[in-house]
Order: sequence, then C-alpha cells, then structure tokens
Amino acid sequence: MIVDIINKKRLGEELTYSELDFFFNGYLEGKVEDYQMSSLLMAICINGLTDEEIFGLTRIFVDSGDVLDFSKDIGVLVDKHSTGGIGDKTTLVIAPIVASCGVKVVKMSGRGLGYTGGTIDKLESIPGYKVNLEDKEIIKQVKDIGVVISSQTKNLVPMDKVIYSLRDVTGTVSSIGLIASSIMSKKIASGANKIVIDLKVGNGALLNNQEDAEKLADLMVKIGKKYNREVRVIINDMNTPLGYAIGNSLEVLEAIEILKGNEKDNHLVDVCYDLASEMISMAKGISKKEALKEVDDSINDGRAYNKFVEFVTRQGGNIDNIKISPNTKNIRAYKTGKITKIDALEIGKLSVRLGAGRVNLDDKIDYGVGIKLNVQLGDKVKKGDLLATLYVNKDVKINNIKEAFKIN
Amino acid sequence: MIVDIINKKRLGEELTYSELDFFFNGYLEGKVEDYQMSSLLMAICINGLTDEEIFGLTRIFVDSGDVLDFSKDIGVLVDKHSTGGIGDKTTLVIAPIVASCGVKVVKMSGRGLGYTGGTIDKLESIPGYKVNLEDKEIIKQVKDIGVVISSQTKNLVPMDKVIYSLRDVTGTVSSIGLIASSIMSKKIASGANKIVIDLKVGNGALLNNQEDAEKLADLMVKIGKKYNREVRVIINDMNTPLGYAIGNSLEVLEAIEILKGNEKDNHLVDVCYDLASEMISMAKGISKKEALKEVDDSINDGRAYNKFVEFVTRQGGNIDNIKISPNTKNIRAYKTGKITKIDALEIGKLSVRLGAGRVNLDDKIDYGVGIKLNVQLGDKVKKGDLLATLYVNKDVKINNIKEAFKIN
Repeated sequence: MIVDIINKKRLGEELTYSELDFFFNGYLEGKVEDYQMSSLLMAICINGLTDEEIFGLTRIFVDSGDVLDFSKDIGVLVDKHSTGGIGDKTTLVIAPIVASCGVKVVKMSGRGLGYTGGTIDKLESIPGYKVNLEDKEIIKQVKDIGVVISSQTKNLVPMDKVIYSLRDVTGTVSSIGLIASSIMSKKIASGANKIVIDLKVGNGALLNNQEDAEKLADLMVKIGKKYNREVRVIINDMNTPLGYAIGNSLEVLEAIEILKGNEKDNHLVDVCYDLASEMISMAKGISKKEALKEVDDSINDGRAYNKFVEFVTRQGGNIDNIKISPNTKNIRAYKTGKITKIDALEIGKLSVRLGAGRVNLDDKIDYGVGIKLNVQLGDKVKKGDLLATLYVNKDVKINNIKEAFKIN
Repeated sequence: MIVDIINKKRLGEELTYSELDFFFNGYLEGKVEDYQMSSLLMAICINGLTDEEIFGLTRIFVDSGDVLDFSKDIGVLVDKHSTGGIGDKTTLVIAPIVASCGVKVVKMSGRGLGYTGGTIDKLESIPGYKVNLEDKEIIKQVKDIGVVISSQTKNLVPMDKVIYSLRDVTGTVSSIGLIASSIMSKKIASGANKIVIDLKVGNGALLNNQEDAEKLADLMVKIGKKYNREVRVIINDMNTPLGYAIGNSLEVLEAIEILKGNEKDNHLVDVCYDLASEMISMAKGISKKEALKEVDDSINDGRAYNKFVEFVTRQGGNIDNIKISPNTKNIRAYKTGKITKIDALEIGKLSVRLGAGRVNLDDKIDYGVGIKLNVQLGDKVKKGDLLATLYVNKDVKINNIKEAFKIN
C-alpha cells in the first residue's frame, strides 16, 4: 500500500484524499519511514500536485495539531506572513503601524533557520522581551493595545515541522504545492481571518522566478477560500537584501528608525507601507489608497512608533538597552563604478558566518552581530568608499566581496 | 553538497562521475542517509539517467566489491542471466545443455525474493545439494565437468544489495538505468566474458512494455562493450507463467522432464532452446542454427540429462529424493470456453501464499509446495475440467481464480 502510493505519484497520477491521509498520518505515527516519505516528496516535487491534492494535503496538515480561533474573543484579526528573506524586518515595522490604525494583529512568529534569525529572534535581541504568552495573555493584550507578537505556544501543525525538516535535507523544498500547504496550514491554524502574504522571489528566497510565485499566490488564495479566509498576496523581490541592516539587533534598530519616520524613500519602506496598507484595507474594507494615507499619518504623528514602544514594553522589553557589537570591520569598494548587484544570498551567508543566523536548530544566535550596508543598488561609488560595516564578535574571513557587491 | 546533488537530478541535469561516486559511496559509508538516497533514486526514476551516468554508476557498483576473473584458469566462460519471472526454471535446463555441448558455464545464482524461490532455492530442494563452493572448488569442477551452479561466495557488488533493498520499499524499482547498472554490475563482477540476458517483459516481470525492454537491452549491450564483455539480450514474454510448474521441487522435476526429452513443443522448451543455442553460438562463434542443432542433439542422445545428473551429484545432490507435498487441491474450470489468460502475477502471488516464495529475506521456503498447471494459453476447457493442481502444506484460500485463469 505504501509503495503503491509512491508508485502512483511516480507515474504522475493524482492521489486520493484517503491515500494522502494514510501516507502523511502514517508518517507522523511512524508507520511510513523517512526514506519512503522522501521518495514520495521527490515524486511530488517533479510530477506536481493537483489543486485537489493540495487542498487535501492542507487539511491533513491543519488537522494534525491545534487550531486557534480568536474570532469570538477578538473579531476581525489580520495576520501577515513573509516567506522570508535577507534583512526582512517587515513584521517589526508593520504590526505596530497596523495596530496604531485600529486593526488588531496577533502574530505568531517562528525562530529562524537559515541566513538570519526569525522575527522572534529579532525581538529577543531587545533585553527583557518575553516571547512566550498564554492564550489568555494574548487575548487580553490584543484587547488592551491591539497587537501581540509572540512565539507559538500551542502545537500548531506538527505535520509541517516534521515534513519541513525532511524536505530541507532531501532536496524536496521546491514544490509549489508543498510550499502552499505548508504556509497556509500554519496561517489557518493560527486563527486570523484575514491574511496578507508577502511572497519573496529571488536568489535569497524560496522561489526564484515570477511564474512560480504567481502560481503559488493563486493557490494560497484558493486554499484560503476553502477555509473562509480572505487572502491577499503581494510578490516582492528578494535578489537584494531588504533595507540596510542584516542581523538581529541591527534590524530592530532599523525598524525603529522607519517607525520614527527617519527613513523614507527606500525599497524596505515601500514594502512595509504596501503590506501595512493592504492589511488595513482588508480589515476596514477601505481602498488601498485610503489605507496608505492612514499608514503615512500614523508614522508622521508618532502613533506607529508609540505603538511599537507600547507593545514591546508590555511584553517586558526595553528598547534603550539594545546592544550591537562594538567590534567593526569595514568593506570598501574594490573599484570605482556603479553598484549593479548586492547579492542577497551572499550577504545572507556572510551573516550566518558572523553568527547572526542558525545552521542547526540548537545553534545560539549572537544578537549583536551583523551587516550594515552603506550603499543601495544603483549607487555610484569610488574605489575605497565604504560599502558596508560588519559588526563582529569573531574573526570571519570575507572572501566573496566581488560576488556580494558587483560594481560596473 | 548531498542536497545539491539531489537538487541537480531533481531539475533533470546530468550528474558527473565524481558526484555519483560521492553520493553512492557516501551511502555505503553511512554519510548519505537512506532518506537522501531514496529521494535521489526517485529523481532518477522520473528524470532518467544519461548513458554516461549509467556507465559511471555501473563502474561504482562493480568497484564496490570483489571482481572475479576466471579467464586465466578457464578461458571462455559463458553466463546467462534471467530477469526473473513466474515458473522460470530456465537455468536448470540450460546450464547442463550448454555444458554438454562443450561450453563452460559458471553460474552464480541468488535466492529469490518475490513470487518463487531463486535458482539456488530450487537446487536446494534437491536433498544434499551444496550451494556454497570455494573459488578453488568452482575452478576444479568447471575444469572437470564444465559446469557449476553455486551461490555467491565472494562479496560481489555489495552496493547493489543495499540499493536494491532500498528501491524495493521506496517505489524506485522501475528505472531502466538503475536496472541496467544493477544487472550488468553483477554479471561483470561474476567473471564471465560472454553473457546472454534473458529479459522478461510482462505483468509478472520487472518491465511491462516492449519499448522499455528494448532500451534496457540496448543499454546492457553498451555497458558490456565498456567492459569488453560480449552481451546478447533475448526479450521474452512474462505475462503467462513459464512452463507448467511453479514451486521449487516441482520446477526441478519439470526441468528434468525437459532434459530427458519428454517435454517438447511448449513455450518454456522454446525459450530454453533459444537461450542455450545463443550461448553456444557466442562461445563457439557458430551460427545460431548450428548451435540449435547441437542443443537438440544433446537432448536426444541423453548428454544434456547426464550432465545435469553429473553436476548435481558432484555438488552432493540426490535427484531420486526430491519431495513434493502429498496434499493437493484442485482448481477446476468455472465455465466452458477457451483459456485466454493465465495471469503470471496472480499465479505468482498464489505461490507465495502457498509458501513457495519469500516475502522477507529470512522467510523459510517450503520446497514441496507449488502449482502444477494442467492447461496452457489457448487450450479449450469444459466447465469442471482441471485447470491446476496445488501442492499444499497449509490451508490457503483461493480467491482470484477468475483473475488467474480467464476463460472466454
């Protein structure tokens, strides 16, 4: 039976719901072996999944754990999910903006595996910030101040955890259907009724091309409909790091500057405004243009920044004590010309080598290290100009400067 | 690196020799996990292997263990390999025929996993037959009487053992390239310089269609050339069991009847004559027609049968004591008409249920049980006529008679 199911997908046939259920739940129960699951996952990666299979798989994922429902306590709740990327601190900026505009946000975030920490790691770089909240605390805090960012307390989508860690080591990450089931099952289980997905495309992201991104976006909207969730997807570039800062404390400080209104007219700010206004537009049923004006106002009159300070303080954090490493190392332009590439993947790898990200789940993150870019794409530089400052706590060899920063 | 190689094959790209070597030998050394190997095997099954990859893989397989070379002791040595099938006792018939015609045969055979025992299991149903011979004994016996059938003593192609058992449980058996590497590496390591492959196609075989069989045949000849082995492939049908007997002792008895010249004009006899004459034609450099005459003569004048008795006796076996179960059960025609199908797969499954085959490698085979067909394809039967006699030692329910025997 197990092998029959694998053979069916190997031949490109559609699996029934009960076959998927038998196989995936069998895996969770230890009846299907790792090597059988990875074989099926590879067949799925190459031969694909039909929409019906993806809906079925999402249901199996959702049903594998707890499903939160805040609707009777809180009502309309907006969530936002980024598919990750280098220097992505959008949640830190967006959540307080949206809350300051009167839209409730409960964000359950994860720790990062990969090039930088996750949102939870970034928040933990603020001394005292408490990431583990009980359901009751979450509901009270949202009612009081409209926003919570906490780590997952409940056992949400345990299926995704085991499948994802297997995919990671078996070359089976790149399946649109598996990605859609993975993301959407977590969002559905997290209890929000309106969801904005910030889908990154580029060499620093899960997906590399626009066509796949559009397919994935379409799928996520369809899955949302099945569960009565309104889903909107915004596709954003991830060939270049997002903003100037890469590293946990550095990214919190950059978010604060944006919330204070000290940073405008850069790509990161545009992305944050776009996502925040999409969330507000969904929640309030107003146009995106109207929502954008609300976002701008909340920054300009200080409400967004105040909301940030309010929720961080409420969760025990003290933003006056954020530490960055005092040891720096400069990267300078190796020739005169125009910056034609700041490679997200190379910068991400460098940030891991500095200690800002994890390779294994039990690695310790060094909050104070990272990279502060001094240039953006298109800038003109002279040989010797500062490209970036590294905040370091150990000696790291920097080999690929020409790969990371292309100057023409 | 491991995941990069999997990803490369997932995308349908060609792997280099050193990538294949790293991955497969890494697996044997425990550096590549089962779930990573099965993922790569599935990508290979779906995306295929180039000829260069198949040559490389065969080399890696061959080099994983001992490689026998009898050429300086024995000279020209012919081997024959059947890809298996229900009721396949061709080796038992062919080896003594070929040897009686003056062509030396050393056949290293395996035990069976699947529907019936392997050649070695069949020979062990002859009381006293010794399957484990040392190299020296093999060489002496071939020099003395021209034929040996023994089990593998040396560590031939250990890579194939581990890969095959993984393929078996991960739905990754059906890859022409993997099948070619698996078969040819074992033949090359076994030391024969001329090889006839009896490639079965049909529902009771590894391959189901003629096109795949021709591709596989072509590949095996090409691999042979790389190793200076002359390879000829004969494609034979395996939708219907081969001959009348299925089960270990029963098959030995059927082989004896053919060698005595008591069975002629049936499909099994045709296949045996064809393969034997191909082997003789290769070894002696004569035409197939001339070789066929030699085969016929050796049966008619008793040399073939005498050679069978000679080698079985030399290896300790006593053909007068072959036992079959005294308990029988008859299967009768459920209607009047013509036999349009005797389903190899269904008959094979029945034979396993009777105890004639193994499901797991440590299962004990019951040599005396099996199925004796009383009809062949195309025969006309009346309702109630005997279709087959089962030789049983335990109660087995027979459900699928209409699936096994189609009467129209």
